[in-house]
Amino acid sequence: MEFKVNSKDLEKLLTKIIPAVPTRTPMPILENFLFEIKDGLLTIYATDLEISLKSSLNIVSDENIKAVVPAKLIYDIVRSLTDTTILFSFNESGKLLLKTETGKYTLSYLPSEEYPDIPSFPGEGTKAADINEFSIKGSELRNAFDKTSFAMSKEEMRPAMMGTLFEFTDDGLRFVTTDGHRLANLLNKNIKTDFNEQYVVPERAITVLSKILDEKDVKVYLNKTHVSFILSDFELITRLIGQKYPDYNSVIPLENELELKIKTKDIHDAIKRMMLFSVSNTRKVKFSLSENTLEISAEDVDKGASGDEVLNCEFKGNDLEIGFNSAYVNDILNHLSGENEVIFKLHSATKAVIVIPVEQKENMELMMLLMPVRLNS
Amino acid sequence: MEFKVNSKDLEKLLTKIIPAVPTRTPMPILENFLFEIKDGLLTIYATDLEISLKSSLNIVSDENIKAVVPAKLIYDIVRSLTDTTILFSFNESGKLLLKTETGKYTLSYLPSEEYPDIPSFPGEGTKAADINEFSIKGSELRNAFDKTSFAMSKEEMRPAMMGTLFEFTDDGLRFVTTDGHRLANLLNKNIKTDFNEQYVVPERAITVLSKILDEKDVKVYLNKTHVSFILSDFELITRLIGQKYPDYNSVIPLENELELKIKTKDIHDAIKRMMLFSVSNTRKVKFSLSENTLEISAEDVDKGASGDEVLNCEFKGNDLEIGFNSAYVNDILNHLSGENEVIFKLHSATKAVIVIPVEQKENMELMMLLMPVRLNS
Repeated sequence: MEFKVNSKDLEKLLTKIIPAVPTRTPMPILENFLFEIKDGLLTIYATDLEISLKSSLNIVSDENIKAVVPAKLIYDIVRSLTDTTILFSFNESGKLLLKTETGKYTLSYLPSEEYPDIPSFPGEGTKAADINEFSIKGSELRNAFDKTSFAMSKEEMRPAMMGTLFEFTDDGLRFVTTDGHRLANLLNKNIKTDFNEQYVVPERAITVLSKILDEKDVKVYLNKTHVSFILSDFELITRLIGQKYPDYNSVIPLENELELKIKTKDIHDAIKRMMLFSVSNTRKVKFSLSENTLEISAEDVDKGASGDEVLNCEFKGNDLEIGFNSAYVNDILNHLSGENEVIFKLHSATKAVIVIPVEQKENMELMMLLMPVRLNS
Repeated sequence: MEFKVNSKDLEKLLTKIIPAVPTRTPMPILENFLFEIKDGLLTIYATDLEISLKSSLNIVSDENIKAVVPAKLIYDIVRSLTDTTILFSFNESGKLLLKTETGKYTLSYLPSEEYPDIPSFPGEGTKAADINEFSIKGSELRNAFDKTSFAMSKEEMRPAMMGTLFEFTDDGLRFVTTDGHRLANLLNKNIKTDFNEQYVVPERAITVLSKILDEKDVKVYLNKTHVSFILSDFELITRLIGQKYPDYNSVIPLENELELKIKTKDIHDAIKRMMLFSVSNTRKVKFSLSENTLEISAEDVDKGASGDEVLNCEFKGNDLEIGFNSAYVNDILNHLSGENEVIFKLHSATKAVIVIPVEQKENMELMMLLMPVRLNS
């Protein structure tokens, strides 16, 4: 069974599918691609049993075959080739031969029966009425992940928080992530749907999608257990996290009447310097607010070192001292670094703080939330 | 005791000195810089007891002081600042205060007595007659290290091979490195001296020098135990390796009458692909030579995978099969990648092979040597 393919076309495709191949897995079979050749179409699948990714390429071939081929080796061979035609030959004895003008590369393949079931959409028994769908620009989906995915939890104790909440509301589609210490929340008002539901998409699907999204529209289909993202050339299917997402609204304070307005770069540069000193477990940095002045300080007791900066800002109200984990402040500012100015909305030293850009993008509402840490001074 | 310095001037200097600060050392004091302020000159030293690096900067200061300051912390603070003036204040109680327009940073410093003796040149008791000297362009010294340093040995069994041989001959200055498996040898005919000597410069001095060399002339002073490299702004002193360098000439074959001439890129690309298959301990790759044809092949027995490429070349003589460690061939070709064509000079499957560029740079003679590995087929 033979077919021909251009090395660069195949490289482009494999580059986008390889992120779905797990690198450390107790099931070595998952370190392979499934190649399916059917009626002149080569479809390549990768899965880690949670997500699956597939894409297709037209080829010239008279026969059909399904085979399991080593993902990393075939990817490394293909991308090391210059622009050339590769002839693939699967022989009866389990050998796959790749031939180019000057080279021959022999690999072993396995029969497709050894490859596990791939997450599929819609699964068996799903009725069409149980499927919701919407479309979103690739750039908007990427932007949502860029702004929010950093705050997903890594703690396996609360599985729902290890994903990104897609919440469909009357106002639009809201993306929410939190690890209990900080929260990121982006409302995209361009997405209007006739259903109000919550879906929790696992971290790995977000990470892989972020690598392959382009500007083009993405069509998304959802049921109770799975979601399918259809990109221009790719389909990514993932299981949803079955657990209910925590009621994040209950932690968003409404009465934060104190506003600190400051240039994003000024506070971000200062925080980066303070991180050199806030090296203890809590990575504590102190904000001391007084009229139009923000003083930021941190101390490394072990080394007898400390830092202290005084920044201009807009602030009115009673003086306030509040502590944060400097790494979390830095994370939030990293994800607001495109913004000229930001506002910190505060209430007291023990209440959650809201951080928003002064200018929101059209039809977007971005909000970050940060829990303070105790100042014991 | 106070002085002022521009942050960017100091950053530039610290960036070049920090590579001499050891990162893992049983003597934590070496993780510091020694600051010496004397008559309006700030001199900063770093050492790991084998090498020392120093540089100076004019400052405005009325007093003199020597103090030991934490290298990484001060470097990180200084490079995180925008272009500004820093006021340094050393107080009596061991605190060093750095002040900028908006920030204050406090560090602890130690008295200079706690800092170890720095390798110096010439050492005490060295007579002027025992010192040899020469000058070399920074770019030529960097090129010599670029072409040869990769082949230094990492095995502590033979200390001399863990350095680079500087051999002064009637023909010029020869740089030699070898780990017993391959050898790199560059003769620079521009350097003519009135002394014929051998000096072995340790790996760390080569690595640090490579980071700070610029185009300008380097003045080099040598005695039996130390060498001093004086760059435009820096002085690096290193102990020499006391052991005699092995007689590398005895391994360079003279009778290699078979010549394989090939485009560097062709063979290098093929070797990189073969490395995907030559993954066993010996990383063996086989060269099969016949008239104007080079076949390169490798096999991964565990995975049942193999690669085979046939390349055009210029070759006359009897057919020959010879094996190499593919990583070593790749190393050599990496360091010849600027060359359009290379020549492999061979004799038999068990004799060392010489690799040279077809066109040598003016007044330079570059030669690589590679030991074959046994083909047991």
